[in-house]
Amino acid sequence: MSFRIGSGIDFHQLGEGRPLMLGGVHVPYERGCIGHSDADVLLHAICDALLGALALGDIGVHFPDTDDRYKGIDSKELLRHTYMLIQQEGYRVINIDSTLCLQEPKIKPHVPAMRAAIAGLTGLTEQDVSIKATTTEELGFVGRKEGVVAYATVLLQRF
Amino acid sequence: MSFRIGSGIDFHQLGEGRPLMLGGVHVPYERGCIGHSDADVLLHAICDALLGALALGDIGVHFPDTDDRYKGIDSKELLRHTYMLIQQEGYRVINIDSTLCLQEPKIKPHVPAMRAAIAGLTGLTEQDVSIKATTTEELGFVGRKEGVVAYATVLLQRF
Amino acid sequence: MSFRIGSGIDFHQLGEGRPLMLGGVHVPYERGCIGHSDADVLLHAICDALLGALALGDIGVHFPDTDDRYKGIDSKELLRHTYMLIQQEGYRVINIDSTLCLQEPKIKPHVPAMRAAIAGLTGLTEQDVSIKATTTEELGFVGRKEGVVAYATVLLQRF
Repeated sequence: MSFRIGSGIDFHQLGEGRPLMLGGVHVPYERGCIGHSDADVLLHAICDALLGALALGDIGVHFPDTDDRYKGIDSKELLRHTYMLIQQEGYRVINIDSTLCLQEPKIKPHVPAMRAAIAGLTGLTEQDVSIKATTTEELGFVGRKEGVVAYATVLLQRF
Repeated sequence: MSFRIGSGIDFHQLGEGRPLMLGGVHVPYERGCIGHSDADVLLHAICDALLGALALGDIGVHFPDTDDRYKGIDSKELLRHTYMLIQQEGYRVINIDSTLCLQEPKIKPHVPAMRAAIAGLTGLTEQDVSIKATTTEELGFVGRKEGVVAYATVLLQRF
Repeated sequence: MSFRIGSGIDFHQLGEGRPLMLGGVHVPYERGCIGHSDADVLLHAICDALLGALALGDIGVHFPDTDDRYKGIDSKELLRHTYMLIQQEGYRVINIDSTLCLQEPKIKPHVPAMRAAIAGLTGLTEQDVSIKATTTEELGFVGRKEGVVAYATVLLQRF
């Protein structure tokens, strides 16, 4: 039996005139994450955790932000591609745990839809996908609402 | 054999007139963490990691800071309840690793008591509970002594 | 079959007149990390993750920055010693995943050398050592180029 663990972290600035995409879901808010893709910080952290578990590089290696193919791309496509790479290596995902650090908005109402989206893209049931959220108690750049951070950890098993 | 991993992160501001509770232990210091409960940032991170491993939501879902039942509560009660939930799902904890990020005070003298407290609440021996500490080298809000951050990772196994 | 997980995080300020050592490799840059040892933030995070997995204390306990023996020391020596402790406890490393958070320079060209260095010190092949990198999108002290943060997670197995 062969297991691997991976962890990912991603950062994005918040800015005007962008939709806030988190976990594959549009979360209504006056600002959104800035980035070359749709800047879905949670999906990016999960992609990085999956890639990291198998030492396949990072999201910047696979989907460079200098490549026009990824401009404005739905990050669900990035997660779909990442999961395909995991499968090609002979691994399946056991579970994903993640935490969104943001001062606002409240994301709790959107968590079920996020879990469903991520489960659908990674061969999991929703019971194997965890999304937690916390403010930073107004500390630092997250507390000043300048940006959002996401952490993800994954456990993989060779099938 | 069925394993799961989880990770948690928690933040609290430091302020005057509060006891500093870390890992279930009172650490003498001129300030303490501010929060609805006793603001034990380390126990909160561990609770979140345990909940996250089984996708049971987060500490804010289980113990909302708008609920008077949790006002000033000893976070050991939160960890006790969280561990009960883990057991109800049929899992035991294999090990807990954690890191406290704080500029001061030195917590090393208190680590044995913290490990004993956490082990007693999670069905572990002290050899299965790790508490590490680091400053941020005076960087950021931790370095400015505005707040404290705790990280925890856990490995669970179905029994 | 007995597994353990560990995670580590380390912080260092960037300053003039220091070589930038990352993952055991000298990365050409106008500044370097400040510290008592060579301040290799990535190797320190990995050491802490390995120690944490077996609850052996933290890097500050094993290699105190008040001890002249560690002044200016090559952190590869710290990782070598840490891995010896892991082996003495009867464990081997399954995989290491890590993330460097720094605004600049680009570390991608140096990742293969870092992976080779770390693999050689921990009984692994390069396929079992992952090093990812991300900026913080100019957010916080990393974004202001005041410092560097490294995260590491490890999976161990009793042999």
